[in-house]
Amino acid sequence: MCRRRQPAHQEKHRENALWRTTRRYRSWPLARKHHPVRKPRADRRPSRHHPALALAKRFVDDGRIGTIRHVRAQYLQDWLSDPLAPLTWRLDRQKAGSGALGDIGAHSIDTAQWMTGQSIDAVAFTAELSGGALGVFEATRLALGRRNANRIEINGDRGSVAFDFERMNELEYFDGTDAEDSEGFRRIQVTDPVHPYAAHWWPTGHGLGYEHLLTHQVVDLVTDISGRRQPSPSFASALQIQRVLAAVQLSAANESRYTKVSLNTAKR
Amino acid sequence: MCRRRQPAHQEKHRENALWRTTRRYRSWPLARKHHPVRKPRADRRPSRHHPALALAKRFVDDGRIGTIRHVRAQYLQDWLSDPLAPLTWRLDRQKAGSGALGDIGAHSIDTAQWMTGQSIDAVAFTAELSGGALGVFEATRLALGRRNANRIEINGDRGSVAFDFERMNELEYFDGTDAEDSEGFRRIQVTDPVHPYAAHWWPTGHGLGYEHLLTHQVVDLVTDISGRRQPSPSFASALQIQRVLAAVQLSAANESRYTKVSLNTAKR
Amino acid sequence: MCRRRQPAHQEKHRENALWRTTRRYRSWPLARKHHPVRKPRADRRPSRHHPALALAKRFVDDGRIGTIRHVRAQYLQDWLSDPLAPLTWRLDRQKAGSGALGDIGAHSIDTAQWMTGQSIDAVAFTAELSGGALGVFEATRLALGRRNANRIEINGDRGSVAFDFERMNELEYFDGTDAEDSEGFRRIQVTDPVHPYAAHWWPTGHGLGYEHLLTHQVVDLVTDISGRRQPSPSFASALQIQRVLAAVQLSAANESRYTKVSLNTAKR
Amino acid sequence: MCRRRQPAHQEKHRENALWRTTRRYRSWPLARKHHPVRKPRADRRPSRHHPALALAKRFVDDGRIGTIRHVRAQYLQDWLSDPLAPLTWRLDRQKAGSGALGDIGAHSIDTAQWMTGQSIDAVAFTAELSGGALGVFEATRLALGRRNANRIEINGDRGSVAFDFERMNELEYFDGTDAEDSEGFRRIQVTDPVHPYAAHWWPTGHGLGYEHLLTHQVVDLVTDISGRRQPSPSFASALQIQRVLAAVQLSAANESRYTKVSLNTAKR
Repeated sequence: MCRRRQPAHQEKHRENALWRTTRRYRSWPLARKHHPVRKPRADRRPSRHHPALALAKRFVDDGRIGTIRHVRAQYLQDWLSDPLAPLTWRLDRQKAGSGALGDIGAHSIDTAQWMTGQSIDAVAFTAELSGGALGVFEATRLALGRRNANRIEINGDRGSVAFDFERMNELEYFDGTDAEDSEGFRRIQVTDPVHPYAAHWWPTGHGLGYEHLLTHQVVDLVTDISGRRQPSPSFASALQIQRVLAAVQLSAANESRYTKVSLNTAKR
Repeated sequence: MCRRRQPAHQEKHRENALWRTTRRYRSWPLARKHHPVRKPRADRRPSRHHPALALAKRFVDDGRIGTIRHVRAQYLQDWLSDPLAPLTWRLDRQKAGSGALGDIGAHSIDTAQWMTGQSIDAVAFTAELSGGALGVFEATRLALGRRNANRIEINGDRGSVAFDFERMNELEYFDGTDAEDSEGFRRIQVTDPVHPYAAHWWPTGHGLGYEHLLTHQVVDLVTDISGRRQPSPSFASALQIQRVLAAVQLSAANESRYTKVSLNTAKR
Repeated sequence: MCRRRQPAHQEKHRENALWRTTRRYRSWPLARKHHPVRKPRADRRPSRHHPALALAKRFVDDGRIGTIRHVRAQYLQDWLSDPLAPLTWRLDRQKAGSGALGDIGAHSIDTAQWMTGQSIDAVAFTAELSGGALGVFEATRLALGRRNANRIEINGDRGSVAFDFERMNELEYFDGTDAEDSEGFRRIQVTDPVHPYAAHWWPTGHGLGYEHLLTHQVVDLVTDISGRRQPSPSFASALQIQRVLAAVQLSAANESRYTKVSLNTAKR
Repeated sequence: MCRRRQPAHQEKHRENALWRTTRRYRSWPLARKHHPVRKPRADRRPSRHHPALALAKRFVDDGRIGTIRHVRAQYLQDWLSDPLAPLTWRLDRQKAGSGALGDIGAHSIDTAQWMTGQSIDAVAFTAELSGGALGVFEATRLALGRRNANRIEINGDRGSVAFDFERMNELEYFDGTDAEDSEGFRRIQVTDPVHPYAAHWWPTGHGLGYEHLLTHQVVDLVTDISGRRQPSPSFASALQIQRVLAAVQLSAANESRYTKVSLNTAKR
């Protein structure tokens, strides 16, 4: 059970290295006000560049799953189950802040907000999204056997999408308008040219790996800059995630009480 | 999307018909004090009689998954997604009490407490079990495509078990002591004679259906009575579930605040 | 690894007890000529009464998977892997005839012919169906870990269906007419009232077990008799399966040479 | 249904471009006799460089699945189901030779021989491996919904391994020595540092894609050359596959008769 983590020299540059305190994030000038095109600044969220998740987002955006009623996100890992796991900065509250929540839970928060186009307005472990949907979030690194079960499921009133990073080339999709006798979750292999990103890669059925997300990230960033568009995710959306995390921590310190997330009008 | 529910005449006898208020439950004499053998009274919980769940419990009891760290239960259905679904007593607060929570969520609560041998001491959606494990519970009937996804996953420090009622003849089991290069969740088909209940039924690999749980229930009840043992689940454990549900409702009415569940010393 | 088989006293009545030689089958008067309604005689094939397989057949019959191009059937078990497995009549050539082929392979042959409505005209392990589709059959009891993997997959030019008895409440269905970006095998839980047999049983999402097939079998037999229809499967179809098995054995004894199955015009 | 194939300019270099006739292969000097270290020549088989398959091979080599009894390989694709699929060289008998068999079936043959360390000595669709195991091979491009279902399953007398390219980061493994009540196919995520190749890539649970196989291929080739070892697969093993394919074609032209594959003593 010697799970592999990022090597030390990569840690500094890792996507969550900056997620420590909301205060620090606010101190970044771009989080306050900036010209998105002249000086584009961007947060890093590989899962925003994921074929299956992008397809899920397309389904959500196109209204194919209707009005969103539930968001269910789990990010389960197990590497910390190893008593011999090294004490990295991730486990040091001074450096890593809110633990599993900020480390991997932040991915779930971003994915949920990005895919639904809604912000989390209140949290207490349970979350209420701005459109009224109920969100349930869990993040742990003690789920033995779950290597990287970054899961999100969104149920709308017309369909559902579900994703598990452990099968990153697949998207589960339920179309509530299918004929009654043949409806069921579809296992979509997100490797067809009609799927997001996939046309630039291998023949159908030949999966992508984690690194492709990083490539997509760079391509999207450069494309946005050259097209004079605000790259996604922006610092503003990063700040909003910090606000959610801060609200979670505040709630936890306050008997898990329902806690409003301060408003964030920034475009995500 | 015309999901099928229990016919009306069965409703009266259904396992949750009595779960309406904690007060009513308390009024049952057996919930207070009774001689468990001379006058056995029993609650009905089919999932306590389930081969896969019973195997999961065996693994938990035998210490095969070690100290419990997480309990994760989801009970997802989708029949209420149908705008034409009839307004049954289940949707009538006067009759059905706490909605999805009391209707299907109660099953998750019972399963989690029964399998871990611990009681839920506090809830606020999140729950803290008496042994310190974190529990996350969700129950909905709006999860399009999930017919009866009554799921529970328990992560210990030596292994994990996971179950989904939609594949009721299977148990997922992760043994953290397996050799490093070959560990992975095992899909156990709970149909071997060595498995709970299975020796009395079909050849290996020939699955059971829902009705077998009801048969097991009767057999276990009769066996317990004839052996002068308290049948499981008892009214006392039913009362304790009511206390958890009441705490959830109290918490919900109180800004989701952390709420202690009143002590229940009854043997489950 | 002590797999469970049918107890001895049931063996005599088991569905394959009669499959020993084609000659014996021919000696049954009904296989030659009989009045199907006045004196109905029937073979036993539980899988003809299976909700998921019946749904698969419906899809095939309705043209939802188009012209059939491939049939792929596997029936994998593992109980014979146990060196301590008792030497039952199944392993005695005198009594059981063609081994795994006649014991479990016969089920695959029946299922394939029944679902496609075509007869196997030639075999040599590979089979050519009367409509031109290529069939591949394999039956073994030495596939460690496969408890009862009775699988069949049919690929048409419009869609595909796939089934594995180990998940008997599910049917995989691929609809080639789905939108390009969302096509994928659907996991249909065959437990809705619109599905074959399911309306007579439990609420949606509550699976059936093996015994229900036997119940369906009796109901269908009685219903056919009372409706003065030839029950399915008939002795004639049983004879045809014997002819296929005989052709396989003949082929095997003859360098696996392509071998015609003698014509069988009987209605299946 | 516009499946994506390799672009034209890559076709020339593709792994199967040379597989047209056994005769041509024989004409390569290295297939006859060569010094493996001074002038290393190599065939290209990406699946030999696959983490999950390499782990499967390790299990086979270490005797963890015991004596091999069955080999079952399927390579199912569906792109040719599209009536608008372009007529590429793959469909031109002059150029592509034996169709699906030589195009994708050759991969299965190589994988099976490589993983078992045995050569296929006789074929007729069914194959007999040199150690006595029964092999069943099927290759098609008409299996609607199967994008790239390159599957292989090997059953030994101690365990089984199963792989499907559509879930290329996973290996199914059944250990027949597990405790009776907890044995079941394990879903191994082949992304741990202890797994083949994986230590050089991402954190555990972050999958690889198709391109990584090509990288592994180059690394292995260079490493073998620098270590003065014969690269794998060799031209000799490529020739042996040609012999198998030729035997299949000969058999097909000869009433599917059992056909010996000419001896190949070359080291694979």
